[in-house]
Amino acid sequence: MTLQEMGARAKEAARALAVAGARKDKALLAAAQALEDACGEILAANEQDLQAGRDAGMRDAMLDRLALTQERVGAMAAGLREVAALADPVGRVLEGSVRPNGLRITKVSVPLGVAGIIYEARPNVTADAAALCLKSGNAVILRGGKEAIRSNQAIAQVLRGAVEGAGLPADCIQLVEDTSRESSVGLMNLTGYLDVLIPRGGAGLIRTVVEQAKVPVIETGVGNCHVYVDAQADLDMAADIIYNAKTSRPSVCNAIETVLVHSAVAQTFLPMMKRRLDEKQVQLRGCQRTREILGEAVQPATQEDWATEFLDYILAVRVVEDLDEAIAHIAAYSSGHSECIVTENYRNACRFTQEVDAAAVYVNASTRFTDGGEFGLGAEIGISTQKLHARGPMGLRELTSYKYIVQGDGQIR
Amino acid sequence: MTLQEMGARAKEAARALAVAGARKDKALLAAAQALEDACGEILAANEQDLQAGRDAGMRDAMLDRLALTQERVGAMAAGLREVAALADPVGRVLEGSVRPNGLRITKVSVPLGVAGIIYEARPNVTADAAALCLKSGNAVILRGGKEAIRSNQAIAQVLRGAVEGAGLPADCIQLVEDTSRESSVGLMNLTGYLDVLIPRGGAGLIRTVVEQAKVPVIETGVGNCHVYVDAQADLDMAADIIYNAKTSRPSVCNAIETVLVHSAVAQTFLPMMKRRLDEKQVQLRGCQRTREILGEAVQPATQEDWATEFLDYILAVRVVEDLDEAIAHIAAYSSGHSECIVTENYRNACRFTQEVDAAAVYVNASTRFTDGGEFGLGAEIGISTQKLHARGPMGLRELTSYKYIVQGDGQIR
Repeated sequence: MTLQEMGARAKEAARALAVAGARKDKALLAAAQALEDACGEILAANEQDLQAGRDAGMRDAMLDRLALTQERVGAMAAGLREVAALADPVGRVLEGSVRPNGLRITKVSVPLGVAGIIYEARPNVTADAAALCLKSGNAVILRGGKEAIRSNQAIAQVLRGAVEGAGLPADCIQLVEDTSRESSVGLMNLTGYLDVLIPRGGAGLIRTVVEQAKVPVIETGVGNCHVYVDAQADLDMAADIIYNAKTSRPSVCNAIETVLVHSAVAQTFLPMMKRRLDEKQVQLRGCQRTREILGEAVQPATQEDWATEFLDYILAVRVVEDLDEAIAHIAAYSSGHSECIVTENYRNACRFTQEVDAAAVYVNASTRFTDGGEFGLGAEIGISTQKLHARGPMGLRELTSYKYIVQGDGQIR
Repeated sequence: MTLQEMGARAKEAARALAVAGARKDKALLAAAQALEDACGEILAANEQDLQAGRDAGMRDAMLDRLALTQERVGAMAAGLREVAALADPVGRVLEGSVRPNGLRITKVSVPLGVAGIIYEARPNVTADAAALCLKSGNAVILRGGKEAIRSNQAIAQVLRGAVEGAGLPADCIQLVEDTSRESSVGLMNLTGYLDVLIPRGGAGLIRTVVEQAKVPVIETGVGNCHVYVDAQADLDMAADIIYNAKTSRPSVCNAIETVLVHSAVAQTFLPMMKRRLDEKQVQLRGCQRTREILGEAVQPATQEDWATEFLDYILAVRVVEDLDEAIAHIAAYSSGHSECIVTENYRNACRFTQEVDAAAVYVNASTRFTDGGEFGLGAEIGISTQKLHARGPMGLRELTSYKYIVQGDGQIR
């Protein structure tokens, strides 16, 4: 089947899904049960993917991402049930008014229509993304990585069956079988069919999609995040936050990559911070002043280090003169994901939250909280680092658009 | 100056503008006065553009769009004052909550950052777009058509002076002096600087920008709009609405292009409708059944006619079997702008508003009301026909994004 045909089927399915109401939850609950029932088949398909991966010399970390177990299939099913339990994001009355001419205007949330998701090796994304799209009334075209194709096929087949069993078109969920580069490019160019394309994966994938797609895209994921330790910070708190934000899970986008320290507290704070980070063998890369305080053993930070999302036990450190210099550094290097100030000073907290331009701006808390679940969105399809449409964690509501319903009694203009 | 340099300046200006508060209104009011004061210079520059247009054999309609008069400059100034009087769209608290761990999360509206506007021959867009961007806290890079370059330069210079006089960076408003195709393409590729690019103009311009841009785009303007006359319609009202929606201003995107008539009333209604439209010599293009009723003098409608935005005194007419067929026709051909049902039937009104996927769905009113002013948005930068970010008329709020401010007391995850 061509992508155009898949697009046309998705568009057709989306019409039914837009008015599906509670049948969406019925489908999600049935799909959860069906995933558990089909666990054997899914694990068998996954074993084929794993074998192919091992034969191709895939690294252990990658094999781990690819691997499914009974527990992981159970987690997928649980995820579907959680999504079913969330409030329907479609049909919310967002606002409205009666115009002077008597027209009654109501702004109501509606699905986006057809969503495309391009992702890499994790087969659980197939179930997670399909569930969020289904619940938000969007038909979805999934294009996963070739490493996981058999697992994805097995999961998608189960989901499609459950959707159909609930009286909705199976084509609400479609998986692209062709995992060549062409199918990826094809999705990026599927104008007229895709209302949004969301890439989920590494920086390279995201950059390619953002630059090449002709359909509307939501850019997700890259997080070059900072903690700024103010002159009036609680230094123990600052050390705790930095330790948590750097080391609790360095590979994720809401981990920090650079610490900025006010010069007035650098002499006291930097050794405190280093002691904590040494517990996890975090490699520091410092500016000249940082190295004067911590010693020449600290590697010098380059211009490139300020701009790098290490996603590793590496942290760049810079001593700044004041809040202005911290804000300017962040403006120059931030990817607009999550930024934090540690301070007890009211004015500085206000200035930082107002002047720093990022999806989430923190005072005295770890950047690791930038997450759909932690923010109370219930679930998350990704974290947007762009400013159009949605910013920060994207949950169900961020997968909707709206329309204006205008009721009259013959008004003309 | 290169576009990169302009982008960097805009980004820097946007930082100041994001926290400018009431200085934005001061700048707008000063700009209004300055436009009136500089009317002579602006008209002189415009006369040069007009002379160049006449020398190049420009059509009268185009010359009219290009031409400024004292009255039109006055209208621009009045527009700036109206925008100044609107509520600031920045800093609105959209929602918020306290999380179980004590984190206080507040979602607050912020400017998008840097907007690019590509437009054609109307010099008043320079002032209108700049005002809306300024008020919404966005630095703007304007790229108008080459026909209006001298007028645009004169207007932009006045605006920049007023902005600077109000204590804001002049680079809040920049005009691209190079009006070659390269500068347009350059703006489309200005990733890292432009947070949004909005094309304003004909279908060709919009298509090019949507397909080629690497920066986020909002698609505006194309309106293939329909009126469906239901079996239980008030036929006099239907004729009034169709007459208004087709003939009050055929060249705009919220005018209708096709009428769908339920077969049960076609025999009565079509001659009524034709009598009204004959007053304006509207050319009808009908399906077979329409022609059986109205006669062979009505030109047959082709497949292409259903898909065409005529923007002229031309109307396609189709008799449909029922509401389902009407909804299916609209799903197949609508550009998702504005769609109308005329009916007295409650169920059909509900089904139409729920099932038809368009920015504005009307019951018993003319589609001509799809407009920022008519919807109460105060002003409008365009009408979005996409579903991401903004749909339908875009006012000041649609030129904003949001950020999450997260206040803690040392929370770690």
